[in-house]
Amino acid sequence: MSNECVQLAHGSGGKLSHDLIKDVMWPAFANEILGEMNDGAQLHISGCRLAFSTDSYVVKPLFFPGGDIGKLAVCGTVNDVAMNGALPLYLSAGFVLEEGFPIADLQRIVASMQQAAKEAGVHIVTGDTKVVEKGAVDGIYINTAGIGKIMDNVHISGKNALPGQNIILSGYLGEHSLAVMGERHGLQFPQSVCSDCAPLNGLVEAMLTAVPKVAVLRDPTRGGLATTLNEIALQSGVGIMLEETHIPISSAVQAACDILGFDPLYLANEGKMIVFVEPESTNQVLDIMQQHVYGSEARVIGTVVKEPRGQVGLRTRIGGVRLLDMLVGDQLPRIC
Amino acid sequence: MSNECVQLAHGSGGKLSHDLIKDVMWPAFANEILGEMNDGAQLHISGCRLAFSTDSYVVKPLFFPGGDIGKLAVCGTVNDVAMNGALPLYLSAGFVLEEGFPIADLQRIVASMQQAAKEAGVHIVTGDTKVVEKGAVDGIYINTAGIGKIMDNVHISGKNALPGQNIILSGYLGEHSLAVMGERHGLQFPQSVCSDCAPLNGLVEAMLTAVPKVAVLRDPTRGGLATTLNEIALQSGVGIMLEETHIPISSAVQAACDILGFDPLYLANEGKMIVFVEPESTNQVLDIMQQHVYGSEARVIGTVVKEPRGQVGLRTRIGGVRLLDMLVGDQLPRIC
Repeated sequence: MSNECVQLAHGSGGKLSHDLIKDVMWPAFANEILGEMNDGAQLHISGCRLAFSTDSYVVKPLFFPGGDIGKLAVCGTVNDVAMNGALPLYLSAGFVLEEGFPIADLQRIVASMQQAAKEAGVHIVTGDTKVVEKGAVDGIYINTAGIGKIMDNVHISGKNALPGQNIILSGYLGEHSLAVMGERHGLQFPQSVCSDCAPLNGLVEAMLTAVPKVAVLRDPTRGGLATTLNEIALQSGVGIMLEETHIPISSAVQAACDILGFDPLYLANEGKMIVFVEPESTNQVLDIMQQHVYGSEARVIGTVVKEPRGQVGLRTRIGGVRLLDMLVGDQLPRIC
Repeated sequence: MSNECVQLAHGSGGKLSHDLIKDVMWPAFANEILGEMNDGAQLHISGCRLAFSTDSYVVKPLFFPGGDIGKLAVCGTVNDVAMNGALPLYLSAGFVLEEGFPIADLQRIVASMQQAAKEAGVHIVTGDTKVVEKGAVDGIYINTAGIGKIMDNVHISGKNALPGQNIILSGYLGEHSLAVMGERHGLQFPQSVCSDCAPLNGLVEAMLTAVPKVAVLRDPTRGGLATTLNEIALQSGVGIMLEETHIPISSAVQAACDILGFDPLYLANEGKMIVFVEPESTNQVLDIMQQHVYGSEARVIGTVVKEPRGQVGLRTRIGGVRLLDMLVGDQLPRIC
């Protein structure tokens, strides 16, 4: 790999991203916590169980229907912390700004960050601002890192999937990717599409307070539902079988995908989550999720199966089974 | 300010950086912890006292005498966490890569991060990699955020400076800035200069274990010694008086500064720290520092005085007093 160059698809969240982590990052940084391969790290400090996660945001354009880079930078990291079964508490914010970037746009972005932080109930407590010369960055990139407190009796991991568990998805797929894509290229979709960007920590807290024994939580961002489920299937060494007719895809997203040739199962979401739960708790989890604004369309979309291990299948409308691989290449760079 | 554009000096760590924080960031994010204005946040989570800090690294060139962007990204954040009187434990790493960036360079950078992390005794436990198209970032930018455990009985803050305290500097000034600058522009200095980039947490731990009652710790990075001391003078509402003859500046740095017209008091350091301590503990702190590889040249460079509040004075060789303001403008953009 060392004679190669970085390709856009190395940042897709799909197969090449995994190769880069496996071949470059992992050999350097190998440690037990990183090896858990969850959306962030679960730490023990002086008896405190904490979750810690980071993401850099390079979305283009900066403003899109349903959000902007600031809202995304807060919600994305809040969600990654929450997916460890944690209550997000504090965020850091690191800005890299291009010389000449309008202060008014920066003000709009930080106001949006603060609004999202307020909704999520987190505080932005430390930060850093770098400025680089014109042309050395495309406007503004933001990194956030987040710390949360893992809830009592909660033990979430991508390694916890077991045959027999149900897989719940919290709502409709593909809205974030299409909203950003549409804005970037000035596309007119048959029906307008807004990003689903939202903080999911309230939904997670409500659910885990009632049912701490949820096995897996993950938000299907870059790489979409299909890639995220492949990760979990590999981490847990199980198979996953989805029912195509149960997967919620809006007519607006389906119509846009039909035109553009995209598969909504591989599109990034920024306000959805996947929950793996035992059959006996499934209805209780569904009830709680459906009462929450960000889970009102929650439904069971499939189950964990024994074989084939590490693979994700989709039972199609006509009764066949389609294997869903990880995303290969990148349909939509700079989606978050 | 809202009709303006971001200037390079907004990232200098000097006066314009402070204006940007005061006029844009603070009105949006205002909260008690951020308001402490230390090198990072001091948090209380379930009885744990934690320090949390972040920095984005955009140094140019990526490799320079004495270090590279990877070593810098680890040491810089380790040091910011340590300056809160904390033992740094865990780091996150967020990479933004340019399409076409050589994988071999990335491997060299992450190896350097790991080596620095090993020396500092911290673990890189979570991360993120984004790739943007050619021209949308200058090679590679890295963000790190760090978490540490604040030591028992230690209460460090830039607000703790009190008249009568001594100000100790751990070693020679200006090496990092000049090493980066020399490499960037292919300059031949009269004597070669290496970056001082180093993790200071071992030095901090040794010192605070013996003398927990240190008042202020700060590393004079962007903006240099003069800007950092101005920040502390403002935070604490005190004056500071330095003795020019006591400030350690190597002949190599002085010679390079003479040629380039730089003032070493405003140059960034990446392996130095300033300690404010009561007179009765000064000798003990000095002894401990001088026994450590990163504090062997430690010395008292000045004292805290009552007046003029919020200002930093320098008693010069010839007996006059020069007022040292915060850095205005930016001598050296992209120094870290």
